[in-house]
Amino acid sequence: MAPQLEPFFKQVDELSNSFIDRLRKAVAIPSISAQDENRKDVFKMAQFLADELEGLGAEVEQRPLGKQPGKEHLDLPPVVIARYGNDKNKRTILVYGHYDVQPALKEDGWATEPFELTVDEQGRMFGRGSTDDKGPVLGWLNVIEAHKKAGVELPINLLCCFEGMEEYGSEGLEEFIQAESKKFFKDADAVCISDNYWLGTEKPCLTYGLRGCNYYSISVSGPAQDLHSGVFGGSAHEPMTDLVNVLSKLVDPQGNILIPGLMDLVAPLSEEEKTLYSNISYTMDNLHESLGSETGIHATKERTLMARWRYPSLSIHGIEGAYSAPGAKTVIPAKVIGKFSIRTVPNMESEDVNRLVFEHVKAEFAKLNSKNALDVWLQHDGKWWVASPKHWNFTAASKAVKQVFGVEPDMTREGGSIPVTLSFEQATGKNVLLLPMGSSTDAAHSVNEKLDKRNYIEGTKLLGAYLHYVAEEPAI
Amino acid sequence: MAPQLEPFFKQVDELSNSFIDRLRKAVAIPSISAQDENRKDVFKMAQFLADELEGLGAEVEQRPLGKQPGKEHLDLPPVVIARYGNDKNKRTILVYGHYDVQPALKEDGWATEPFELTVDEQGRMFGRGSTDDKGPVLGWLNVIEAHKKAGVELPINLLCCFEGMEEYGSEGLEEFIQAESKKFFKDADAVCISDNYWLGTEKPCLTYGLRGCNYYSISVSGPAQDLHSGVFGGSAHEPMTDLVNVLSKLVDPQGNILIPGLMDLVAPLSEEEKTLYSNISYTMDNLHESLGSETGIHATKERTLMARWRYPSLSIHGIEGAYSAPGAKTVIPAKVIGKFSIRTVPNMESEDVNRLVFEHVKAEFAKLNSKNALDVWLQHDGKWWVASPKHWNFTAASKAVKQVFGVEPDMTREGGSIPVTLSFEQATGKNVLLLPMGSSTDAAHSVNEKLDKRNYIEGTKLLGAYLHYVAEEPAI
Repeated sequence: MAPQLEPFFKQVDELSNSFIDRLRKAVAIPSISAQDENRKDVFKMAQFLADELEGLGAEVEQRPLGKQPGKEHLDLPPVVIARYGNDKNKRTILVYGHYDVQPALKEDGWATEPFELTVDEQGRMFGRGSTDDKGPVLGWLNVIEAHKKAGVELPINLLCCFEGMEEYGSEGLEEFIQAESKKFFKDADAVCISDNYWLGTEKPCLTYGLRGCNYYSISVSGPAQDLHSGVFGGSAHEPMTDLVNVLSKLVDPQGNILIPGLMDLVAPLSEEEKTLYSNISYTMDNLHESLGSETGIHATKERTLMARWRYPSLSIHGIEGAYSAPGAKTVIPAKVIGKFSIRTVPNMESEDVNRLVFEHVKAEFAKLNSKNALDVWLQHDGKWWVASPKHWNFTAASKAVKQVFGVEPDMTREGGSIPVTLSFEQATGKNVLLLPMGSSTDAAHSVNEKLDKRNYIEGTKLLGAYLHYVAEEPAI
Repeated sequence: MAPQLEPFFKQVDELSNSFIDRLRKAVAIPSISAQDENRKDVFKMAQFLADELEGLGAEVEQRPLGKQPGKEHLDLPPVVIARYGNDKNKRTILVYGHYDVQPALKEDGWATEPFELTVDEQGRMFGRGSTDDKGPVLGWLNVIEAHKKAGVELPINLLCCFEGMEEYGSEGLEEFIQAESKKFFKDADAVCISDNYWLGTEKPCLTYGLRGCNYYSISVSGPAQDLHSGVFGGSAHEPMTDLVNVLSKLVDPQGNILIPGLMDLVAPLSEEEKTLYSNISYTMDNLHESLGSETGIHATKERTLMARWRYPSLSIHGIEGAYSAPGAKTVIPAKVIGKFSIRTVPNMESEDVNRLVFEHVKAEFAKLNSKNALDVWLQHDGKWWVASPKHWNFTAASKAVKQVFGVEPDMTREGGSIPVTLSFEQATGKNVLLLPMGSSTDAAHSVNEKLDKRNYIEGTKLLGAYLHYVAEEPAI
C-alpha cells in the first residue's frame, strides 16, 4: 500500500521558495576545505547546519576531529551529527552528506559569482556547492521541515552525519565512523548517501556499486644526475626508455589489461546480469557528448557500461621527473616515476592485484636487460563496493522514484569510488544506498556548477517519500 | 722548424698574476644573458672587452643586433668584433668566444660567491664564466699582451668575434655571421673556437666533429578535456596509452634506434677510423665517474666513444600534458605530447631523418587501432659537423699542444652540438678547429664552475703557440 504522501508533497511545493533561500544562504558561505584561509568558513557552514537542524527540533552535536594532519595549525572541521526521532518501533535511517565545497573563482570562467546562488529562467540554480553537496544535504532538512509544517509524522528515525572535509580526502572521517559504529550509528537499519548524480538528465537512478582503485608508481633510475643527451645519448641506459617500455606492457590501446592473471580475478558475467544493461537509459551519444569526441572504445552502450562499471581498467596518468614543460630540452632524466592506476571490481582483492602487478612489472623490466634500477609500489588502494539492489533499502527508494518521477529508476553502478560508502557499510554492517539528487550536467568540481530547481524540489520529495516507503517495506 | 716561442712563454709566466686579475674583473661582471635584469651587465661586459682590446691596440667595434625577438623591450648585446694586424703576407685567423654566462646564485650550492673569482690552494679558480667562456676569450687578449710586452710580433692577423647571447640561443648571431661573411670575416683563412673541454683532466684535445640534433614532438589527443579515470577508464581510448606505445617503438633499452632505414644513413665505419678510438685517453671509469653510476651500455671505451661521437642516438625527454607532479592524481589526460630527439651524424640529412621518423611514428600508431588522433613534427634541427683533422689548422694546433704540454692531443669529436661551428664553416668556407682550454671537471653550467690556473696560463701559451705554428704550416 502506498503511503499517503500528498500533504507532504503539497507542503514541499509551498515551501519551495524558502528551500531555495536555505540553499542560497548555504552557497553564500565559501566552505572550501582545501584552502586554509577558508577554514573559518567551513566552521561557519557547520554552525549554519547545526542551527538549522536545532531549529527543526533535532538533537545536534558538532564533533571535533582534532588537528589537520600535516597542517597542525588548522583544526579539522567538525562532523555535524543529528538525531531526529527516537522511536524504538520505527526503522532508523542514517544519512550522509558533506557541507564543504571545491574551490571556485569567478575568473576561472564562471558566468556568475560562484558564491551567490543565481537562478536562471530555465530553473538552473548556479553556485559552488549547489549540487555537490549542499543541495542534497539541505534536502534532508527540507524533508523534516515540510513534515512538521504539514503535520505529518516522520515515519522513521533519522540520523544525520554531515562532514566538512570530503573535498580534501575526508580527513579523520574513517576513524570517526569506526569509533561511532557502536555508539551514535548503532541504531541504523540502513544507510542512504546522496552525493552522486543521475546517469543523464531525465531519469533518476539508484546506485549499488562502485569500482575500487589501486594506484601504483614505477620508478626507474640510473645516473646520479640528469644527463645531457648530446654527451651521453647512446652510451648510457636511459631511464625514460626503460620506463616507457614497461608502461607500454600494462594495457593495450583497446583497454585490455596485459597483466597476466589479473582478469581471472574478475567475477564472471552472469546471464542475469547481462540483461541489466540494455534497460539503462544511456546512449552512445551520451558517451560522445561527455567525452567531447567519438573516441569511445566499444560499439554498444551495454559494453560501454560494463567497461565502466563491472570490468577493471588501467590508466597511465603521467611521469614524474621527466621534462614536462612546453618547448624543447635535451635532457636525459636521471630518475623517472610512472604513475598508473587500476580500477578494481568484484572479486579483485587488493593484495592479489598488487602481487600480479609487481610480478609483471618486474618481469617486463628484466626482459629489457637494462643496468638501471626499477622499483614498483602501491601508492594507495580503495576497495570496490557492491550492495544488494534487492534489499528493502533499494526497493523503498525505487518505489519513491516511481511515485515522484513516474518512472522506474535506472539501477546503476559507477566507475569511480566514493570511499565513505564502504566505510559506512563496514562500520554498520548495513545496506548502503546511493540516492542521487543532481543530474549528469551539474558540473560538480567544475565552473558553473548548478542544481536544477526540479532536481532540488522533486528531489526533496523523493528523499521524504523514500523514508515513507522504508517504513513500509518488509524486511528481507 | 719549431717557432721561437720562449720569449712569449716567459712573458706569459711573468704576466700570469695580471692575467688572473683580468679574469677576476671579467667574472665580477654578472653578464647573464638569460635574465632581463642582468642585460645591463652583459653590455658592461662587452664594454670591458672592447676597452681591453683597444688598450692592446686592436681595432674594435661593438656591433648592435637590434631588439631581442619576443622581448622587444630589451636590446640584444652587441657582437664585439676586433682586428689585430692587417698584413696581407700573413694568414688571418678568426677566433670566436662568448662573454655572457649562465645564471648563478650562491644558494644554488656554490661553495664561494659565484661572481667573485676565488683561487684555492690547488690552483682551481672558481667563478661563473671562468671556464665558459671568459677564460678562453681572455686567453686571446693575453696572447696579444704577452707578445707586445715580449716584443714579439704576432705572426698572423687576428680577427675576434665575441658574442653576448650564447647561453640564450645565440639570438641574432647566425644572421650576423652570414652578413659579415664577405665583409669583416672575408680575410679569414681558418677559424678557431675555444668553447669546449678536454675529454679528461690531463690531456688536451682537438675537436673535429659534433653531432647534430633533430628534436621531435608527438601529440596524441582524444577527448575534449581531461577525464576522470574512474568514470571513463575502460570506455575511452586513452591518449597516454597510445603515446607510451608509440614512444616504446623508437629505441630499445640498449640504445638501438628502431626506426627502419635510419641506420642505413650512417656513414660506415672504416678500418682507418676504427683505429682512432683506442688511442684516446679515456676509460670506462671516466664514463662511470661522469654518470655517477655503472649504467653504461657498452663494454669497451672504443664502443662507448663511437656511440657518443659517430653513431646516432635517440633520447626520450618527457611528456607534456600528463600528470607530472609528485603524489597521485586519477586523471586521463586529454592531450599529451611526447618529446624526443635524435643526435645525428654523417651522412644523415635532416629531411631524410624527418621522413623516416614521421613514417615510422605514423605506422606504429596505425597498428594501435586507436580512435585518437596523432601528430608528429620536427621542433628544430641542427646539422652535424665534421672537419678535416688533417688540415693545417689542426696540424698547427697539434704541434702547439705537443710544444706546450709535451703530449700529442686526443683527436676527438663530441656528442653534443655547438651550432656556431657550422655557421662559421658555412659562412667562411674555411676549416674550423675547436681548441678547448678547460678540462672535463670544470662544471660549466653547474655550481662551482672553475678553470684551473694551469689550464688558463698554459692554455694562453697554447693559443699563442698555435698562431705561430699556423704561420709556418704549409697549405694542403
